Amino acid sequence: MSERTLETARGELAALQRKMSAYNHAMGVIYYDGATCAPKGTAANRGASLSVLSEEVYRLSTSPETVALLEFLDARKDSLNEKERREVHLLYKGIREMKKIPMDEYVAYQQLINEAEDVWHRAKANDDFESFCPFLEKIFETEKRFSLYVAPEMDPYDKCLDGYEEGLTRETLDKFFAALREKIVPLLKKVFAAPQIDDSIRFGSFAADRQEKLAYYLMETIGLDLDHVGLSTTDHPFTTSLGSHFDERITTNYHEDDLLSSFFSVVHEGGHALYDTGSADDLAYTCLDGGVAMSIHESQSRFYENIIGRSRAFCGLVFPKLCELFPDEMKGRTAEELYRAANKAEPSLIRTEADELTYCLHIMVRYELEKRVFDGELEVKDLPSEWKKLYKEYLGVEVPDDRQGVLQDTHWASGLVGYFPSYALGNAYGAQFLAKMKETVDVDACVAKGDFGPINAWNRENIWKHGCLYTPAELLDRVLGEPFDPRFYTDYLEKKFALLYGLK
Amino acid sequence: MSERTLETARGELAALQRKMSAYNHAMGVIYYDGATCAPKGTAANRGASLSVLSEEVYRLSTSPETVALLEFLDARKDSLNEKERREVHLLYKGIREMKKIPMDEYVAYQQLINEAEDVWHRAKANDDFESFCPFLEKIFETEKRFSLYVAPEMDPYDKCLDGYEEGLTRETLDKFFAALREKIVPLLKKVFAAPQIDDSIRFGSFAADRQEKLAYYLMETIGLDLDHVGLSTTDHPFTTSLGSHFDERITTNYHEDDLLSSFFSVVHEGGHALYDTGSADDLAYTCLDGGVAMSIHESQSRFYENIIGRSRAFCGLVFPKLCELFPDEMKGRTAEELYRAANKAEPSLIRTEADELTYCLHIMVRYELEKRVFDGELEVKDLPSEWKKLYKEYLGVEVPDDRQGVLQDTHWASGLVGYFPSYALGNAYGAQFLAKMKETVDVDACVAKGDFGPINAWNRENIWKHGCLYTPAELLDRVLGEPFDPRFYTDYLEKKFALLYGLK
Repeated sequence: MSERTLETARGELAALQRKMSAYNHAMGVIYYDGATCAPKGTAANRGASLSVLSEEVYRLSTSPETVALLEFLDARKDSLNEKERREVHLLYKGIREMKKIPMDEYVAYQQLINEAEDVWHRAKANDDFESFCPFLEKIFETEKRFSLYVAPEMDPYDKCLDGYEEGLTRETLDKFFAALREKIVPLLKKVFAAPQIDDSIRFGSFAADRQEKLAYYLMETIGLDLDHVGLSTTDHPFTTSLGSHFDERITTNYHEDDLLSSFFSVVHEGGHALYDTGSADDLAYTCLDGGVAMSIHESQSRFYENIIGRSRAFCGLVFPKLCELFPDEMKGRTAEELYRAANKAEPSLIRTEADELTYCLHIMVRYELEKRVFDGELEVKDLPSEWKKLYKEYLGVEVPDDRQGVLQDTHWASGLVGYFPSYALGNAYGAQFLAKMKETVDVDACVAKGDFGPINAWNRENIWKHGCLYTPAELLDRVLGEPFDPRFYTDYLEKKFALLYGLK
Repeated sequence: MSERTLETARGELAALQRKMSAYNHAMGVIYYDGATCAPKGTAANRGASLSVLSEEVYRLSTSPETVALLEFLDARKDSLNEKERREVHLLYKGIREMKKIPMDEYVAYQQLINEAEDVWHRAKANDDFESFCPFLEKIFETEKRFSLYVAPEMDPYDKCLDGYEEGLTRETLDKFFAALREKIVPLLKKVFAAPQIDDSIRFGSFAADRQEKLAYYLMETIGLDLDHVGLSTTDHPFTTSLGSHFDERITTNYHEDDLLSSFFSVVHEGGHALYDTGSADDLAYTCLDGGVAMSIHESQSRFYENIIGRSRAFCGLVFPKLCELFPDEMKGRTAEELYRAANKAEPSLIRTEADELTYCLHIMVRYELEKRVFDGELEVKDLPSEWKKLYKEYLGVEVPDDRQGVLQDTHWASGLVGYFPSYALGNAYGAQFLAKMKETVDVDACVAKGDFGPINAWNRENIWKHGCLYTPAELLDRVLGEPFDPRFYTDYLEKKFALLYGLK
């Protein structure tokens, strides 16, 4: 091999990331296929392949050649441009962490996750937590073990949080959730005491094929490029990027008795897809491609779902399309009824279908439970009963079974421990972004006209195009120019729900 | 590294093949996703990933470690069991051939193919051969160049044929097609002179979602395990194995005006899937898994499609299901009308929809054209006009456009040059298998009862379970116990069509 120079090393860095993108594509599409159209007896086969591929990724990421390359570049970081510097930083950090996890344990975990998702699907269908419990125990145990391998000096749950947002800690979250609770709980009390919203417009008979047409209409309306963003049906809606930001997939789930379930899933996942596909083209096939942290990601998905999607302007915009697709069901209905139904606040069982006001309470349940399991205060086998207890305490609802309780979300089955707080943070970031955006964009007027150009341009310029170039904290600083403050979110909620429910 | 022993080498051989299976799974599912549900602007992204993955496969297959392993095992082949011996033989042969192709050319070809398929899709939709022509030129040129790299002593078209059936030559095929022509052409003349069959039963209005129900019914009826065999919709029906015989996918294409198009696609692809999923379990994750040669593969697909699917017994078996799914369209119709419609012989434009009698003529057109292009007698740009000329000559039909002419098949776009003769050989092998099967199985009675157990057991025992353990010639020897003779096929056709058309 000839001597490595800065130029050749730059080429190697690009080649390494192209390779990793291809493996991510391969593993992503195997996963996506499993969730969308694979025959139901094929999970073990996918597991076998994923275990080989993840072993290859592990080898590729931690090989002496890769380490030498990154050390070489790290030693010359002053000669690198901003983008390369960040790539080297992230890859080098990833490798240092990965090398602390024994390869066999890493590979075994990938295989466990793949099986666990399959078991979870069946467990949820059969309301059978017991069959899933041993998998979930192993997942929590492995997440904690890996956290301790990687950062023995840190609290292992903090390390999990850091995996979804660099630098996030339980201390920050405890304060954040306390601030939310302080405002939301009294607001909820007032809302529940007020006359309730009639949301009958959303219920009826809405054929799946028409809902699919609606889904594509919504995707186009919010500005997704359907040449690069696909839609499929899965049990639990999700978004995944296949390879780079040129191929994004979102999924939804049609409930024929409920107009708004898939509706808001599509707008939510569409927000994720806008963010991922909005990365600058020169980030493609690098580790900087796509959204930076799950909380920022959720700020975008929930911005489109709630701030835009559940606005009066958006309900007015899409109402004619609903009348066209469901003329019988929409007969005599109004856009205002749609708006009110989309914002009815009530304690409920299912997080993904929760209204904006109660949503964060669903997150707090999961956050509390994860902390306690990590701290050894709660055993995994007792999660179903604790789940029921906390739902009663926080939301005042009786959880009738585990299917509508602890088994409702796929996250834990996918190894996403420490992820849930991102949703709540995302809500709060989104509200502060809105305030900033409104300084230069007449958001309501744009939505009412169906002109997403200025809104998407603002998000692209300020957030999307940067991909992972900045840390979440740096990005927030750049966008906001002031510290993050949950007050923007609680103010937004107080104002919106006071108007909706006629509160004083 | 510790000393290699026979035992450790066996372990390495298994690990190598598991790895290759995972890469095949990854590349297969990326391809499958592209054909089934990927957004239409994503081909370049798939191409980028496939090129990385195929480069990895190339490296893995030709690395000094792999060569050393196979040399070690080859030198000890007397100590290996039959299965291992065959694995080493096939892998070693593959590597020796692959090493003769420069890696950059190999990778570039994978990428070309991926693009070409995309261009072909659009060219077919727009009846625009010109846009596809430069790709097809490169494909033919590359296939010829690679053949010459691998076997400079061989005729390059023979080398292509050998790729789909070890040992097959144009000399053999010239004789085979001459034997077919000698019998089929006069038979066709008699058929066309006889009163024509009324096939109006197949035309009408058959909703795609009902045809999908029919497809699943047919898959179950012929004995496919739906836990391991999936069904999707694509432009051109195909079958692909993802990883190993535990995950097989077939596709179809619903024509709402024609009942029998998807019907026979499903039974055809179902035959492929039966073969692939019928490999013995101990062949899983080895290079012996799945069908051995494309001709044997086609013998199975066309056995189920034609010999079984277009039999009077099968039409009688499925007719009640058709009445249930399409009560209006089937009103006053009979199973006998279905049988006759399914066997109407007429010169046509589209190979995949051709009847049994004219089918081989479609193949002969493609065979002639491939030979001439390889021999430099015909330029790729002249394929559309030569295609039209030969269709006029062989089938007596005017080809109105390239969409129904040279652009109809995906094979060339996928680099499958030398593949088409497999279909004709498969037909002929199938007829001889039938004669053999009938010595111990009452095929018609089983089909009439819907009892596919004995038929599938015979195929599994004689053909499927062996995977690639034997060469096609060895397999034919074992199954038939006598030389292959196209007379079985021509006799079968003569008898069937004489009865159908009341010929003397």
